[in-house]
Amino acid sequence: MVDIARFHPLWLRDNCPCPDCRHESGQRLLDTRSLPDDLSVVAVDGTTVTFSDGHTSTFDAEWLRAHSAPPEPRRRRLWDARLQNGLPVFPYDGPLRDWLAAVDELGFAILTGGPKEPETVTRTAELFGFVRETNYGRLFDVKTVVNPKNLAYTGLGLGAHTDNPYREPTPTLQLLHCLASSADGGENTLVDGFRVAQDLPREDVELLVRWPVRFRYADADTELDAETPVLSLDARGDVCAVHYNTRSARPFRLPDDVVGPYYAAYQRFGRMLEAPEYRIQFKLEAGDLFIVDNLRVLHGRTAYAPTGGERHLQGCYADRDALRSKLAVLSR
Amino acid sequence: MVDIARFHPLWLRDNCPCPDCRHESGQRLLDTRSLPDDLSVVAVDGTTVTFSDGHTSTFDAEWLRAHSAPPEPRRRRLWDARLQNGLPVFPYDGPLRDWLAAVDELGFAILTGGPKEPETVTRTAELFGFVRETNYGRLFDVKTVVNPKNLAYTGLGLGAHTDNPYREPTPTLQLLHCLASSADGGENTLVDGFRVAQDLPREDVELLVRWPVRFRYADADTELDAETPVLSLDARGDVCAVHYNTRSARPFRLPDDVVGPYYAAYQRFGRMLEAPEYRIQFKLEAGDLFIVDNLRVLHGRTAYAPTGGERHLQGCYADRDALRSKLAVLSR
Repeated sequence: MVDIARFHPLWLRDNCPCPDCRHESGQRLLDTRSLPDDLSVVAVDGTTVTFSDGHTSTFDAEWLRAHSAPPEPRRRRLWDARLQNGLPVFPYDGPLRDWLAAVDELGFAILTGGPKEPETVTRTAELFGFVRETNYGRLFDVKTVVNPKNLAYTGLGLGAHTDNPYREPTPTLQLLHCLASSADGGENTLVDGFRVAQDLPREDVELLVRWPVRFRYADADTELDAETPVLSLDARGDVCAVHYNTRSARPFRLPDDVVGPYYAAYQRFGRMLEAPEYRIQFKLEAGDLFIVDNLRVLHGRTAYAPTGGERHLQGCYADRDALRSKLAVLSR
Repeated sequence: MVDIARFHPLWLRDNCPCPDCRHESGQRLLDTRSLPDDLSVVAVDGTTVTFSDGHTSTFDAEWLRAHSAPPEPRRRRLWDARLQNGLPVFPYDGPLRDWLAAVDELGFAILTGGPKEPETVTRTAELFGFVRETNYGRLFDVKTVVNPKNLAYTGLGLGAHTDNPYREPTPTLQLLHCLASSADGGENTLVDGFRVAQDLPREDVELLVRWPVRFRYADADTELDAETPVLSLDARGDVCAVHYNTRSARPFRLPDDVVGPYYAAYQRFGRMLEAPEYRIQFKLEAGDLFIVDNLRVLHGRTAYAPTGGERHLQGCYADRDALRSKLAVLSR
């Protein structure tokens, strides 16, 4: 039996399932604002409730039970370097649902044996959603012809970072597809920012949440500037977003007495992001692709060996809403 | 004179402007993580600083002064119904910069005398940025042939709301373009959610910030579900985002003792959003268009008179980063 008395009258009335109050799609037809503040329940018969505004609603007992429980937290599995032995690698032509579920749960997936043609990266995003076009285009090339005369610019490793923190909203997904991979080294590295934040001292987390950073990117046609903290918390106090990019962070504007503690926290977090115990790595071959949740999983690359060869990736951005929608529809 | 001693050594070293440390684009080449924790200043000569890692940096005194001041808050002007006498209306073919600045400052702009062709709405978004494609397509039609036999669905007013709170990230801009407007009534209403939140009792703001709401949209091909509070605060404690949509809000999952106070806050805010003292309204003619900041300005429409006629709008979504980038570039 469901005890109707434990539900607030406004909550019950607002969630009336009758066809006048709610469309079959689940959208509410009733504008909540139209309900009187002093609404009360005047009669109850099982799960049929009559309200003081004259409306009668019949609820499903199972629905009431399910919706009086606290909401289920989003399914996510934090990981560290031990995931190296069980990386979420999927055949490009395998079931879509499998790798979408991995992205949702682990924050990334690797696809192997895909097409080696340009624009595969955007076609892959369109398998589940929509490309987020930016000033870099629908896709961008990460093409580095390794030239031993110019190692400083081309062979260096790239520390773990999230992409485009200077954009608002920040793209929530990034895809990178490999077209050529004959250079030695240049492996991709990934780290679960949520997992690292879990091990960061609480005072550090609080500093990185409390003081936003401004990020910036500018060129002849573009001037992007956004302010966001390195770590964001959801209502439960769990880290729900990471924005970390030493290249585009503007000078910190902090009170004098905060600069030292902030740098200590920022550096501790930044170094943990590079620590072998958290990091996984893999090398993309031509036709391979990976997709990361850009608010959770940071990516980087190891240095190249100066022996020549080519490395050509194409990347694009997309968003999580469409990925989760497609996953939910495929899971019906 | 700039007193170098007041700057933290890590802050100075991290912001070295020399070409080894910073690219001419402003991107940092130095990975902040590489700096030692115990870095110190070993010599100062004017604004030239030598650090314990052996690096020497020369700063611009003006730059140091500018960057030691607290950052300038984002320019925004809150408004209420009194704006009705000075609406930000711009000729469609006038300077782009003018209406982009209005969107940035007021959260909306109205363009008049534009093309009356379909797809004008997406072409307008492309004047400054990129269309955010969604499951509704690159654009969507809001077409209502007024039919007195079916008033319940077509003639009703629509309360102030933000669009797509079930999407993550929520589109930050919405554009609506009018192709036909022969129906009586159906005026567009707008309200500045930041302004209304300013007048909301602080306890109400805190409840609407503290307890997230889940929003949902589902159809045969789509299942979008996102959790976000009705009001979000930035690091300064100012409201920086509004998500309010009574149609797509799922049943609140709140502790029993919070339901009553939460509804009181939610209803107070919702009704203030409809109050004449905050609201402006205008009627689009064919060729007119408006653009709103979808995290700040809520839109709605008044009821239609049951006298027949046509009302056809096309809408699309876009994002603020590109708008602000274009505005900054045009303001150089």
